[in-house]
Amino acid sequence: MTLVVQKFGGTSVADPERIRQVADHVARTRRHGNEVVVVVSAMGKETDELIRLASEVATVRPGREMDMLITAGERKATALLCMALHDIGVPADSFTGSQAGFLTDTTHTNARILEVRPDRVRQSVDAGRVPVVGGAQGVSSDRDVTFLGRNGSDVTAVALAHALQADACELYTDVSGVFTADPRVVPSARRMSKISFDEMLEMCAAGCPKPAMRGAEFARTWRVPLHVRSSFTWEPGTWVVEEDSSMEQAVVSAVVHDTSEAKVTLAGVPDKPGIAARVFRALADADVNVDMIVQNVSDHGVTDISFTVPRTDLDKATSITGALSSEIGATGVTTDAAIAKVSLVGAGMKSNPGVAATMFETLATAGVNIEMISTSAIRISCIVREADIEPAVQTLHTAFGLDA
Amino acid sequence: MTLVVQKFGGTSVADPERIRQVADHVARTRRHGNEVVVVVSAMGKETDELIRLASEVATVRPGREMDMLITAGERKATALLCMALHDIGVPADSFTGSQAGFLTDTTHTNARILEVRPDRVRQSVDAGRVPVVGGAQGVSSDRDVTFLGRNGSDVTAVALAHALQADACELYTDVSGVFTADPRVVPSARRMSKISFDEMLEMCAAGCPKPAMRGAEFARTWRVPLHVRSSFTWEPGTWVVEEDSSMEQAVVSAVVHDTSEAKVTLAGVPDKPGIAARVFRALADADVNVDMIVQNVSDHGVTDISFTVPRTDLDKATSITGALSSEIGATGVTTDAAIAKVSLVGAGMKSNPGVAATMFETLATAGVNIEMISTSAIRISCIVREADIEPAVQTLHTAFGLDA
Amino acid sequence: MTLVVQKFGGTSVADPERIRQVADHVARTRRHGNEVVVVVSAMGKETDELIRLASEVATVRPGREMDMLITAGERKATALLCMALHDIGVPADSFTGSQAGFLTDTTHTNARILEVRPDRVRQSVDAGRVPVVGGAQGVSSDRDVTFLGRNGSDVTAVALAHALQADACELYTDVSGVFTADPRVVPSARRMSKISFDEMLEMCAAGCPKPAMRGAEFARTWRVPLHVRSSFTWEPGTWVVEEDSSMEQAVVSAVVHDTSEAKVTLAGVPDKPGIAARVFRALADADVNVDMIVQNVSDHGVTDISFTVPRTDLDKATSITGALSSEIGATGVTTDAAIAKVSLVGAGMKSNPGVAATMFETLATAGVNIEMISTSAIRISCIVREADIEPAVQTLHTAFGLDA
Amino acid sequence: MTLVVQKFGGTSVADPERIRQVADHVARTRRHGNEVVVVVSAMGKETDELIRLASEVATVRPGREMDMLITAGERKATALLCMALHDIGVPADSFTGSQAGFLTDTTHTNARILEVRPDRVRQSVDAGRVPVVGGAQGVSSDRDVTFLGRNGSDVTAVALAHALQADACELYTDVSGVFTADPRVVPSARRMSKISFDEMLEMCAAGCPKPAMRGAEFARTWRVPLHVRSSFTWEPGTWVVEEDSSMEQAVVSAVVHDTSEAKVTLAGVPDKPGIAARVFRALADADVNVDMIVQNVSDHGVTDISFTVPRTDLDKATSITGALSSEIGATGVTTDAAIAKVSLVGAGMKSNPGVAATMFETLATAGVNIEMISTSAIRISCIVREADIEPAVQTLHTAFGLDA
Repeated sequence: MTLVVQKFGGTSVADPERIRQVADHVARTRRHGNEVVVVVSAMGKETDELIRLASEVATVRPGREMDMLITAGERKATALLCMALHDIGVPADSFTGSQAGFLTDTTHTNARILEVRPDRVRQSVDAGRVPVVGGAQGVSSDRDVTFLGRNGSDVTAVALAHALQADACELYTDVSGVFTADPRVVPSARRMSKISFDEMLEMCAAGCPKPAMRGAEFARTWRVPLHVRSSFTWEPGTWVVEEDSSMEQAVVSAVVHDTSEAKVTLAGVPDKPGIAARVFRALADADVNVDMIVQNVSDHGVTDISFTVPRTDLDKATSITGALSSEIGATGVTTDAAIAKVSLVGAGMKSNPGVAATMFETLATAGVNIEMISTSAIRISCIVREADIEPAVQTLHTAFGLDA
Repeated sequence: MTLVVQKFGGTSVADPERIRQVADHVARTRRHGNEVVVVVSAMGKETDELIRLASEVATVRPGREMDMLITAGERKATALLCMALHDIGVPADSFTGSQAGFLTDTTHTNARILEVRPDRVRQSVDAGRVPVVGGAQGVSSDRDVTFLGRNGSDVTAVALAHALQADACELYTDVSGVFTADPRVVPSARRMSKISFDEMLEMCAAGCPKPAMRGAEFARTWRVPLHVRSSFTWEPGTWVVEEDSSMEQAVVSAVVHDTSEAKVTLAGVPDKPGIAARVFRALADADVNVDMIVQNVSDHGVTDISFTVPRTDLDKATSITGALSSEIGATGVTTDAAIAKVSLVGAGMKSNPGVAATMFETLATAGVNIEMISTSAIRISCIVREADIEPAVQTLHTAFGLDA
Repeated sequence: MTLVVQKFGGTSVADPERIRQVADHVARTRRHGNEVVVVVSAMGKETDELIRLASEVATVRPGREMDMLITAGERKATALLCMALHDIGVPADSFTGSQAGFLTDTTHTNARILEVRPDRVRQSVDAGRVPVVGGAQGVSSDRDVTFLGRNGSDVTAVALAHALQADACELYTDVSGVFTADPRVVPSARRMSKISFDEMLEMCAAGCPKPAMRGAEFARTWRVPLHVRSSFTWEPGTWVVEEDSSMEQAVVSAVVHDTSEAKVTLAGVPDKPGIAARVFRALADADVNVDMIVQNVSDHGVTDISFTVPRTDLDKATSITGALSSEIGATGVTTDAAIAKVSLVGAGMKSNPGVAATMFETLATAGVNIEMISTSAIRISCIVREADIEPAVQTLHTAFGLDA
Repeated sequence: MTLVVQKFGGTSVADPERIRQVADHVARTRRHGNEVVVVVSAMGKETDELIRLASEVATVRPGREMDMLITAGERKATALLCMALHDIGVPADSFTGSQAGFLTDTTHTNARILEVRPDRVRQSVDAGRVPVVGGAQGVSSDRDVTFLGRNGSDVTAVALAHALQADACELYTDVSGVFTADPRVVPSARRMSKISFDEMLEMCAAGCPKPAMRGAEFARTWRVPLHVRSSFTWEPGTWVVEEDSSMEQAVVSAVVHDTSEAKVTLAGVPDKPGIAARVFRALADADVNVDMIVQNVSDHGVTDISFTVPRTDLDKATSITGALSSEIGATGVTTDAAIAKVSLVGAGMKSNPGVAATMFETLATAGVNIEMISTSAIRISCIVREADIEPAVQTLHTAFGLDA
């Protein structure tokens, strides 16, 4: 008997009709000989709605009360899905994070799991029932309700799959899997049937919007096979698994792009030890997420440092860097929000040294100028003009043989 | 130091603005030298909304899951009100029914309180904080979440006031108190400043819509002084207290009317023992709430039985009575939905025998025909034509000196 | 036959149950021999919700589209109330602002009425039906939908009452009328049965939250009798009418207070012509609403100017004044948010010169210091410490014989 | 320059984030050199919500008022999408059905289009702007607002594409196109890139849930090329076009199944003219939608008539047929809700006579019993046991070479 953890996100349980469809799918999965454990998020945009309510009520929002508030959303969803299952003859039990054995630290609004003791969940499965667990929640060592943070339902599902030694963890969402490129930009993009944990993580980091990076990280750590798939079409999606020899060994698996970043350049920086450290420590202390960093070789004792940050953090980054600029003796700060990042990701790159060269030639031929470059073992990323991003992605997709 | 339990119903916490107003009022009450314990219902119509969601999801709705679902509403309200209090500098702690010590039986969706152990609530008060307790909820002996049923927040508030030996329990609602008559029918009706527990209960039974009977019953049992008042105008409302000699001893305190009932008559019933028992047992088994019952004196071994039921139960009552009719040898069943009930309530009636006579004369003079009569020690109720109810209430209000 | 315009605000039609209660009330008003025209706002907080949606969708929000969006709320409410009326046998017709003949200018989101041609509304009344008109909306000379702005439903109601020469305009809200003081601060405050147009306007300006000033202004201009009353208790409320000799001639009718303002002081201002003009023009251009202004007598060619603004505008006012400060040669700007305003309002003041003196003595006796003073023919306002506002209001209410 | 009508359904504009994604997509489509006209439905489940509100308010719901109510939903969506477009620099104009020139008859709640005069829409396009038209609405010859009924937005889009002679009409929805079978039952089902109008209609009739039949019918009538595609993945979907020789000529294009029907059998019917007519006229008069009808050959002057109806209509159908049964001399009525329908659809069937035989053999080999059969030129449908439906669909999908 196969044990499957099925996680349904907010759009999958957005209204009564969709909840009944999820129940049908759980029943079908059981009919096909599987045991099923379900993890659900709050319905639709309910978490956003609750956070908004809180912000309309108060400017001071204690973490303990925020977690009491937000976890109400998943409670509703678990109870409703259990009713829908009972209604079609499938016995089911709702469990809060606490009842499901999720013990966490006391970092409210973003708690870390300390241990999972899924005894009641296991008993429910063993009794031939379907446990339905509230995602993203647990109970702290102070016996208060805790919330695991955004995308925490993916974490709950992967952790539960690990603790129960499930055969797979299915993440149902509104897209039908992971694509070789964004179909809006490349209409001939294909859905991949398989991808390795490492590739998935690099794609997330490069800007691939689904699945969320957090669940992918836990899945890689614990080697939990993921299946990213659609709760609208219900067709098989993309498996995220251990890399193996049987896997299709394309040199490049996907072209990922990201237009949500901006570039900051600190010019005329004295070339002395500790300068970069001061800049990036200040940004880190302000919770600014720096992505790529490039420092030009210094000729005359001065250098330029460029880096990218989320556009939503650009104002913050500019003012922090500006404040430091004179202090460290730099000549000025410039910013550029009209950039975009294009990345190639592929496990096969490790044994194919020419990928970068081909990438740069392809972009050059297409008349796309490269402004920054960064690489990992299985990824190459280039910063280009935002206006060039669509042709960049399209030509790379074709050049590396990814067109359907 | 005075300890006050303040209970805020759904309309009082319907949106962020109202929640902030409630927080202001709690802060003001503390500034005036009181300790405050708060009980809140779910925001606005959220409980109805959750029940509707459940009915759209499933026809089979296990009680355990319904209670998990519905109690999510009060959790949200407690957390939000705590944030609003923190925001204006009042330390506060949210408590679920379970955390507040409400132990119940396992009758899901309508649980009965077995015991209240408000240790954490008491500690919070003693620490100079405001405990905010989710209304209408508890934890069962099976350690599952339970719901106390409709108007259960009033029960939570009164039970907590009793357990904490509070000085008063304030029920905030959308009306400004209890009136001598419905102001829609009698524009000169006055808000009463005081009323006895017994009068309040009789008024509830006679059709007075606010407060709900359930909280009034518990308050009488435990002698908890109630203050029914408005969270819109915040003016002092009506106290429901022990009857005492200092109380204004009007013979009649209020005229209450009710147009939600219908009359059923079972004609030509053989005058034999056990017939009435069979009829009313059958109605009770079908959860039909019978209010007034009148049986005419029998001349020729047959009799008529008339009774009133809520109009919403009329179809059910008619079909049950109709089915029994031939079985018990009755000649037929007739129904009448165009009736209304007018009642006089007053503690002073006990020592004033002429009230009934005056009532009947007043109605007669106004040309209002009486179809059924029923009395208690401090109440007289008459069934009249629905079309006559407004003049009936108005003339009685004047005749018994209640006009402002 | 009397013609009444009844206007129901958002809380009065917040949900189906309340809409049905409104329909019952309209039917009752007709049974009592009146013709009724209804004006409705959007349900509950729907207007806020629509504005929030818009702000989540876009930062650029063309006025034409905002008005298309927002007026959808009132359309819903008119249609639903018409259904509720039909359901109890009262024929009714919904009308948009355009159908009701509200012609406006093209100032989207805050349009001004140019003309009201209520032909279809009149025809509906003449046919024995109830017209239900969407509040706060019209059609522009460009034939686009327009919105009259916040509290525009009151304007619609008063304008319609004027155009139809109605006998009264009833404004239903969640409070039961206008009080002699805020009952939260003065539990012995009384609801006034009558008040003059002028007093009502001064009370609005002094901080009385209901009714909104805008409707009161139009009512005064057109001499439309208003009846401010509750749709929760339905008891008679407060009439706002022409002042006449038969009116209770209390010297002081009400004590109003306001804690929503802050004080700004510009110190050491050179005593030259045009300085004040520059300051207050700059504030006006930035849409900062200045309330009280006090300028101290100048001894040495310099002076201090103090004024009050809404606290929500304090940051804006401070930065504008700060920027001007050195430019005009002032020595500095100080601000104080911990103030409050207490006002006496009464038509009788005109012929009773000692009111101000009594007010100042009363406050002095209570140990309340006065920081600024401003008067009109029928109002005296003092700025005091915020911490002193409750005793200030309470002692004045008692001193001027307003306690119940 | 190509002109494209893009229609976005409720899930595509369910919240601010999705509305902004739609705006991005419209902008991208324009950047690629197209003129765009947009049609939108109400956000998410708003139409259902409005209907529910109406049913909670009244049992009598005049059509004129229902249409005033429901069309408010699309107005909101048009205004919000216009704001989102302005926000990214795309000029846009919202149009109600009336402003867009949709003239209808006066059949409220289900109006029929009489004429489309899209002058203002055309002008907006010609001015380089994007007209955004409210779906499913128009104005009647009485100048009242009308609603075109469920799935009316598809009709609006197709009619507008026809009137503007657009090159294509794109229907965006939550699925990524039309599949060769339901992927929940056949994981190897493929999305079709092209399908003919006739095939699409037969698939709709056979139970394929998306797109709605109504839009497909209009598209066939007016020969408007449809593109059914996803607003979640944005990948190219399925084109519904004129059948042509270049089209992939599979004998069978898809296997469609439907478990929403039930079977009714009227047994022992006298074999006389007019009997069937009476039965099906009675059902039609009661709005029962009869799908398949089978009458067995009569041996002894009596016959059995079996037919299928939606399960939601089974009770109604049973009582109507039962009431007629004795009247027409039949021996009785039996019903069976545990059936399912499986259909093969394919334009190639016309020239391939053996398809039916192969279908029956395949089902027989799989042990699936056939209870009723019905055919059209390009479709064969069989009623089987509901429990057999999954293997039936799976074996047919394989047998006709449709597996991916």
